[in-house]
Amino acid sequence: MTEGRKLRMGMVGGGPGAFIGPVHRLAAEMDGKIALVAGAFSQSAERSRQAGLRYGIAPERAYANYRQMIEAERGRADGMDFVAIVTPNHLHLPVALDALEAGLPALSDKPATATYEEALKLEAAVAKSGLPYGLTHTYAGYAMVRQARTLCASGELGVIRKVAVEYFQGWLSEPVEKTGHKQAAWRTDPVRNGPGGAIGDIGTHAFHLLEYVSGLKVTAINARLRSVVAGRQLDDDCSAFLRLSNGAEGTLGCSQIATGEMNALHLRLYGEKGSLLWRQQDPNRLFVRRPGRPEEIHHAATEYLSADAQAVARTPNGHPEGYLEAFAVLYREFADGLAVWKQGTANPLPATLPGIEAGVRGMRFIARAIESSRSEGWVEF
Amino acid sequence: MTEGRKLRMGMVGGGPGAFIGPVHRLAAEMDGKIALVAGAFSQSAERSRQAGLRYGIAPERAYANYRQMIEAERGRADGMDFVAIVTPNHLHLPVALDALEAGLPALSDKPATATYEEALKLEAAVAKSGLPYGLTHTYAGYAMVRQARTLCASGELGVIRKVAVEYFQGWLSEPVEKTGHKQAAWRTDPVRNGPGGAIGDIGTHAFHLLEYVSGLKVTAINARLRSVVAGRQLDDDCSAFLRLSNGAEGTLGCSQIATGEMNALHLRLYGEKGSLLWRQQDPNRLFVRRPGRPEEIHHAATEYLSADAQAVARTPNGHPEGYLEAFAVLYREFADGLAVWKQGTANPLPATLPGIEAGVRGMRFIARAIESSRSEGWVEF
Amino acid sequence: MTEGRKLRMGMVGGGPGAFIGPVHRLAAEMDGKIALVAGAFSQSAERSRQAGLRYGIAPERAYANYRQMIEAERGRADGMDFVAIVTPNHLHLPVALDALEAGLPALSDKPATATYEEALKLEAAVAKSGLPYGLTHTYAGYAMVRQARTLCASGELGVIRKVAVEYFQGWLSEPVEKTGHKQAAWRTDPVRNGPGGAIGDIGTHAFHLLEYVSGLKVTAINARLRSVVAGRQLDDDCSAFLRLSNGAEGTLGCSQIATGEMNALHLRLYGEKGSLLWRQQDPNRLFVRRPGRPEEIHHAATEYLSADAQAVARTPNGHPEGYLEAFAVLYREFADGLAVWKQGTANPLPATLPGIEAGVRGMRFIARAIESSRSEGWVEF
Amino acid sequence: MTEGRKLRMGMVGGGPGAFIGPVHRLAAEMDGKIALVAGAFSQSAERSRQAGLRYGIAPERAYANYRQMIEAERGRADGMDFVAIVTPNHLHLPVALDALEAGLPALSDKPATATYEEALKLEAAVAKSGLPYGLTHTYAGYAMVRQARTLCASGELGVIRKVAVEYFQGWLSEPVEKTGHKQAAWRTDPVRNGPGGAIGDIGTHAFHLLEYVSGLKVTAINARLRSVVAGRQLDDDCSAFLRLSNGAEGTLGCSQIATGEMNALHLRLYGEKGSLLWRQQDPNRLFVRRPGRPEEIHHAATEYLSADAQAVARTPNGHPEGYLEAFAVLYREFADGLAVWKQGTANPLPATLPGIEAGVRGMRFIARAIESSRSEGWVEF
Repeated sequence: MTEGRKLRMGMVGGGPGAFIGPVHRLAAEMDGKIALVAGAFSQSAERSRQAGLRYGIAPERAYANYRQMIEAERGRADGMDFVAIVTPNHLHLPVALDALEAGLPALSDKPATATYEEALKLEAAVAKSGLPYGLTHTYAGYAMVRQARTLCASGELGVIRKVAVEYFQGWLSEPVEKTGHKQAAWRTDPVRNGPGGAIGDIGTHAFHLLEYVSGLKVTAINARLRSVVAGRQLDDDCSAFLRLSNGAEGTLGCSQIATGEMNALHLRLYGEKGSLLWRQQDPNRLFVRRPGRPEEIHHAATEYLSADAQAVARTPNGHPEGYLEAFAVLYREFADGLAVWKQGTANPLPATLPGIEAGVRGMRFIARAIESSRSEGWVEF
Repeated sequence: MTEGRKLRMGMVGGGPGAFIGPVHRLAAEMDGKIALVAGAFSQSAERSRQAGLRYGIAPERAYANYRQMIEAERGRADGMDFVAIVTPNHLHLPVALDALEAGLPALSDKPATATYEEALKLEAAVAKSGLPYGLTHTYAGYAMVRQARTLCASGELGVIRKVAVEYFQGWLSEPVEKTGHKQAAWRTDPVRNGPGGAIGDIGTHAFHLLEYVSGLKVTAINARLRSVVAGRQLDDDCSAFLRLSNGAEGTLGCSQIATGEMNALHLRLYGEKGSLLWRQQDPNRLFVRRPGRPEEIHHAATEYLSADAQAVARTPNGHPEGYLEAFAVLYREFADGLAVWKQGTANPLPATLPGIEAGVRGMRFIARAIESSRSEGWVEF
Repeated sequence: MTEGRKLRMGMVGGGPGAFIGPVHRLAAEMDGKIALVAGAFSQSAERSRQAGLRYGIAPERAYANYRQMIEAERGRADGMDFVAIVTPNHLHLPVALDALEAGLPALSDKPATATYEEALKLEAAVAKSGLPYGLTHTYAGYAMVRQARTLCASGELGVIRKVAVEYFQGWLSEPVEKTGHKQAAWRTDPVRNGPGGAIGDIGTHAFHLLEYVSGLKVTAINARLRSVVAGRQLDDDCSAFLRLSNGAEGTLGCSQIATGEMNALHLRLYGEKGSLLWRQQDPNRLFVRRPGRPEEIHHAATEYLSADAQAVARTPNGHPEGYLEAFAVLYREFADGLAVWKQGTANPLPATLPGIEAGVRGMRFIARAIESSRSEGWVEF
Repeated sequence: MTEGRKLRMGMVGGGPGAFIGPVHRLAAEMDGKIALVAGAFSQSAERSRQAGLRYGIAPERAYANYRQMIEAERGRADGMDFVAIVTPNHLHLPVALDALEAGLPALSDKPATATYEEALKLEAAVAKSGLPYGLTHTYAGYAMVRQARTLCASGELGVIRKVAVEYFQGWLSEPVEKTGHKQAAWRTDPVRNGPGGAIGDIGTHAFHLLEYVSGLKVTAINARLRSVVAGRQLDDDCSAFLRLSNGAEGTLGCSQIATGEMNALHLRLYGEKGSLLWRQQDPNRLFVRRPGRPEEIHHAATEYLSADAQAVARTPNGHPEGYLEAFAVLYREFADGLAVWKQGTANPLPATLPGIEAGVRGMRFIARAIESSRSEGWVEF
């Protein structure tokens, strides 16, 4: 991308009623490096057209399905540069495969695919294509998550011995999927969502955040999944013990029936020499504790942060950044990577941007958690 | 603006080193209703050109000065629809006057002008032009500020009897204006900034927030302004007593030498029947207290909020919105207003968007505060 | 106890170096209903004498051991009315048995005994004696814990479906037991402490708090105990899944190697209709959430609290009460119970004061947790 | 006081309906160094007798008035060692004078007297008597206030340039003094309370805390006092500008009509190099900010605190101490001072315990604030 030329994005999914579509559009365009130019926003041609109008793209570029979009955009001089995949989970793989086959980089909503097997397929396809592929584990885009990650890597906390990550929501406390709630409907439907309910929707975020910040890998899991709301086909509440690659242990919890919780993603890491706490709903602060010293609050956009945490700030300290800004960090890193890639760099995306490896691990996590819950015991990763 | 056609924005100011330019660009474009297409970003033609490149606009539309921009854009079929004014304060008036004269609506950074007299001139010009004019008192764009405003108007807190608003920062604790800090340099220079230092830069925000939320007007002020850092020409710390239109009293404080503070804008209103607290650094929560009842935390993007507070949400509750989103709310309201105005509506901007009236009041506030501080006593408004 | 006559307390344990002895003395005497008059503060006669001096009791009433104390006090007209047991765990049973045999009521530090088998013995002895017996699960004395308990019982939260209780400390992050730390030494020694380390010391508090507030019983546990610090003989970090009597499930965590944590006991209960959160380090606030309504903060010593929560307040709202006050609530309830008991009431202690039943459950909890951890699976309660 | 012999306290005031009497009793006895043995708890003999019963003192030592008490206790071998003065304000002086005349040290509730003139009289009497005299500015007893004080003295914050102290309550939002509220009745009555309402009741606390922590003296005040509730004779809401001995300036606010506030005493001090924040309702934490470094939370009872902050801790960190413990610190310091004084030391009370000097300054503060409010301008101190 030459300066002054925005990267052109085509979106699959994100039509009327979707939560995540507008978020992707907004995050993609925030830093002025990407423009949404085309979309297959819905499987209904009419609904896709309406969404296109709302998004302000040219009418002829709101397509009835993603195959059509890929085909048509290919033929345009100003055709899209990459595909953003924001559909329900079962379409992540087919869309990604088609995009890659057409030579288009892809940035996909998580989870990477609907099943672990699909993820392996996608991993192979990405490798074969040599194309950039990114995964929007949003929370990896927060400045203070970057700060936490760098703190861990620096050894300042010593060897991590205990971890606790949890992601609690309450919006599925009632069987809202039966009363026309579109988000709830596909997320509780094994066909469109895949086999993991809460564990897939938000457990994967918690899992990713843990590995992303700690630099450790989960090696075994002992999970307990429940469907608390009567008649629900997928899990809506999960607790798990974890073992990690350095011998540490810990817990992961996720729930969508934690009545009264909003979007409570919390990470705590306990090392030999210190610990940290980050909470998504208070994202611009990171709490760091070391024995014999005052507790510290690291604030976003301050000069004492690590370089990579400073790099993602858009506003001065005390001017809160939020969820959309975190999301946009991932798009920005993807856009910057694509600019480099177009000049021939082989692996253009930075390590801070989750990719297919994170996607495969997330899907393995879901599979292993379900397996563990069924067998009521530990499962190796 | 028909759906699908973005409003075209020309920006004056916001060149290299500016904080607020990129923020305006980002806020303007966030909701997909506005595109930055032209700019006179700096008084140096070369720097303006560089900024234009960075913002991704066509090279020929990065102008050497705003007069040139207004002239040239006028001649284009795709010329700009309105002007965003983000210069140092002393240019707010001349730019606004020229824009209005050219028939262009304007959205201006605050304060409206450099002096009260200028504000009165601008008020007259706006009235005469019949053109939409908006003022980016950013904090008015937060959902929970809207909620607080509606709560007050509803009478739920009873008659407001006591107010306390403060805006504390620490970034001017040292004489950074002497060491090349561009923001600090013009803000502490009476020529470019106008006669009010902290009182103008952030005191006006506090003042506006108070009147905006409470629905009351300040009728008298007894202010104490200081220049704490040696050699500084403008005030950097201010405290004031206030009298309000309903007989209430209270305090307003603002400081840029409150070492260690970031951007601590806090509002408290105490009525006969209840009180509220809002803090800008924790913007998605509003605290409401009523005797004999548990304290309440109102969270952004929830169903129990007032309609106007709900209307500005972009993400579900628990997904924090921040400063940029608040800013973008004002741009969105301006854009929506312009769309209506183009269809012939006379006063298209909603009451929630600060306009020239707020601008005049802000400038009167600065003038009265300085007058009061000099006379060491009360001054009527 | 007639008004104006304080109840006379004899203490076993609590000599030099003990943390909990002075706390018991202070809590016992806080409300002016109890006076410490005698003690066997240490197994060293000299150290007991010194402690007696420090506590300000008559020299001849600082005994060399508890048997001597019971014997001697019996012979005095002004002999002690009850025994407070604050020794390391392995002495809880023998002291309690001797006290009961001598006709003396006992208030014991938790856990009730060193092992589950001992707890059953003690339960039988208490029953046989007909004497009042109390257990100082301190956290049950906080006003807001009482409020939480009453809220649960009222059904306002609906059926509880998910629980999460944790108690994290960091003071055993290093092997301090090897460097002369007296508290650490006996707590990590299986002989003096019993078989449960962190699970016994603080896990029992978490367990008790959960059952106390929710009104539910744990029916099965799947626990994972670790000794993280090299060379430590007892567990110092534990995570567990729980099943509860109404079908709810949840987690319990406790750790003494959570570096940087102080005394972080947190309880969350999620019902069908609402949830609550209480944190011991912020004890005067209880957070209550119900869908579709603002989050509530219930403050201690306010008029909207339940009667039993109001009953334990000593200072007006906004005047924080703390750990010692919570402790003293239990002593006060014990003292009030004894006054009634002396007039012939059979079961004088209120349900709000933990007794031998809670003690037995706590010991069963430790035993089942250890058993579960060894078998790596679920164990029925 | 030899070890093992408690100091004997006689109390004046604190009868039925009083808030502060039981608090003084509790605080006095908390550390086992003082015993309440006598009292003139009410001006009604019968009510004094009842209070004596409730406090558990010998019936003959519950006197009908303080003169009688002083006289009678003098004649006893086990007579009281000092007098605690907890009456409404107008009795502080006469009781103190009589006590001093009888050779009895006194510990008095604040404010020291009802008027400034009285305070000067008392100052002279204390000086003449050579007796220990203490003043229970409770908040001076908090560990973190001590830490803040030592931090300031250490120069770590640099020269203090700006201060902000406020004390907001809401309990007088309604005219409760007209509906039988005993506390409200005398506090809003100029005869029993003295000329300062909120400024005297809580403004003096804020004023004291400011001088106590900062080590600075207020040199001038510009205050605005209001009686907001109709018919109230004394001020219930006050705001003031302050000048301090080192050239710093700042604000002091106090209110008892801040609806919904409980006991919100907050102190902020801004120095050249750093700032601190302490809030009474969250008393075990002190926030310290320094440019270029993470914000720090200093927690009570930790090893990194100053020696004098550590000295007042009774429980380990994470076990919250509260208002009663802070109060008891002052009693403990008074008791320790008396023990030394009995051995002939001339000025036995430590600088950390407020005395008559603080009392005089507090009364001057009230007088100057009222004078300033009447003259609507600055008044020198």
